[in-house]
Amino acid sequence: MNNVKKKSGIKVFAPATVSNLGCGFDILGFAIHGPGDVIKAKFCKKPGIHITKIEGAKGKLPYDAEKNTASVAGMAVLRHLGKEKEIGIEFSIHKKMPFGSGMGSSAASAVAGAFAVNDLLGDPFSKRELLPFASEGEQIASGGTIHLDNVAPCMLGGMTLNRSNEEFDVHRVITPPGLYCSLIYPSIEILTKDARAILSPNTTLKKHTEQSANLGGLLLGLFRGDLDLIHRSLKDVIIEPQRAQLITGFYEVQNAAMEAGALGCSISGAGPSIFALSKNSVVAEKVGKAMEAVFNRLKIENKLFISAINMDGAIKY
Amino acid sequence: MNNVKKKSGIKVFAPATVSNLGCGFDILGFAIHGPGDVIKAKFCKKPGIHITKIEGAKGKLPYDAEKNTASVAGMAVLRHLGKEKEIGIEFSIHKKMPFGSGMGSSAASAVAGAFAVNDLLGDPFSKRELLPFASEGEQIASGGTIHLDNVAPCMLGGMTLNRSNEEFDVHRVITPPGLYCSLIYPSIEILTKDARAILSPNTTLKKHTEQSANLGGLLLGLFRGDLDLIHRSLKDVIIEPQRAQLITGFYEVQNAAMEAGALGCSISGAGPSIFALSKNSVVAEKVGKAMEAVFNRLKIENKLFISAINMDGAIKY
Repeated sequence: MNNVKKKSGIKVFAPATVSNLGCGFDILGFAIHGPGDVIKAKFCKKPGIHITKIEGAKGKLPYDAEKNTASVAGMAVLRHLGKEKEIGIEFSIHKKMPFGSGMGSSAASAVAGAFAVNDLLGDPFSKRELLPFASEGEQIASGGTIHLDNVAPCMLGGMTLNRSNEEFDVHRVITPPGLYCSLIYPSIEILTKDARAILSPNTTLKKHTEQSANLGGLLLGLFRGDLDLIHRSLKDVIIEPQRAQLITGFYEVQNAAMEAGALGCSISGAGPSIFALSKNSVVAEKVGKAMEAVFNRLKIENKLFISAINMDGAIKY
Repeated sequence: MNNVKKKSGIKVFAPATVSNLGCGFDILGFAIHGPGDVIKAKFCKKPGIHITKIEGAKGKLPYDAEKNTASVAGMAVLRHLGKEKEIGIEFSIHKKMPFGSGMGSSAASAVAGAFAVNDLLGDPFSKRELLPFASEGEQIASGGTIHLDNVAPCMLGGMTLNRSNEEFDVHRVITPPGLYCSLIYPSIEILTKDARAILSPNTTLKKHTEQSANLGGLLLGLFRGDLDLIHRSLKDVIIEPQRAQLITGFYEVQNAAMEAGALGCSISGAGPSIFALSKNSVVAEKVGKAMEAVFNRLKIENKLFISAINMDGAIKY
């Protein structure tokens, strides 16, 4: 088995993710089907990880293994096993999603990198055990702080809640069957660090309480499959009002989504992508088209993704 | 049946409640067994509600029906039915709990008042429908704003989450079987309005996020019966640090409770009572004794209550 792998290598996929889920800022996220990172990995003679090819990134991702999110995550796995001076691995990366999009691009790279190395070595770690290594890679892109809200759903699939980033205390949140996501990426450039910088370091106790009440309602609604409760709860009174200004047409898109029947609609990650959740794929299609129509009218190039919650997370294929 | 009631009247009980449940400030609460308000109610000739007797309140509760929480709530029921000038009801109130204690005393009065009138009239409203009337009574005591975190569990029983006070959007939160509460009331005077005034109207985004993550963890832990997750999540980084100073010995009591095996321990309501949750009655006894020992050592008079979560709420008996 390992001999076969050594020759032909393996191929893994890590999906795009929606994080900052309305009232679940920094703690809730989920994976979708379709966009994501593909890594082909195979053994080579030179110890360490070497990036031989990057496709789909328009020259914007580094080949330097110490700077590339995927290889940093992969190296963290090797290093933990004490094999970084012994084993050599080549990565061929195919980015099948936009980056700087609020769709968890760096998390997808990091997860794919850690997952690929783990798979190639015969799965010494469980997916959950890989989270710290993937996070190490993701930190490169996010400026040194761990944010599991993309990494965790990308790796594990489904919707996740991270109670503590430091303790990797991550939990699967049950979602009602049929829940569908419409995710639209407009070609508006937002740097994650700018989206962070725009946020006030303070908020009010009143807003905190309102946001907490909605978070509680959202979690109860998801558990019970109470779509009306999800609809009433999926709001963001703290982050969205501050970041909406970075996304031309945000409120028009949001209104269009809600009028088309979405349960809720807000900014995906740090933007500019906007997600909406709907009760089924038919509504999600309609919602997606309504969102798309707004950006088309505003002459902002955009790309629409319609997907169920991806329960698989990172996969080998 | 109504004739029997008219002669002998009825007797109801509304339990004490723990609110501001750690990271669930203003949104989570639960009812306990034991302390609470008893109201005996019977019809009389003079329209409106009349308080004929108040026991257990050391003369501190008003007989004036327009100022007493119980009668205001009861009147709200009568008024909603358009019968306030037609039907007369006498209340005899027995307060079997301390007030100004952080144990939801005014909520117990309000709930008992609304529930008693409803029962006497042959239950025109469901318990859930009574929430607005009980809240109208509770507002008298809490200074004009609605806080359902005591009223809702007192009326409905169990643990509740109020997503929106304005919309009476209240939900039962599933709790693991066996969960037990140790509640200690030290004779330290705190006025709810002082406990409110001490709170900063602002907090930080960092604390908001940490508190939200713990709230999410607590709700998932409760749903899944994951006691370790409840233990890790039942914390309050916003309110408790500000209010602890009002309660002599708070941190000593908290430490004693945690060392004795509590899952979590924080201020009940606006204090001075302190609650701890434990995985079963045996641990809850031990935890309660440890909390009691601290206050005894500090020569602060106290009263300890050990109880399962009260799933009944207001009852007729």
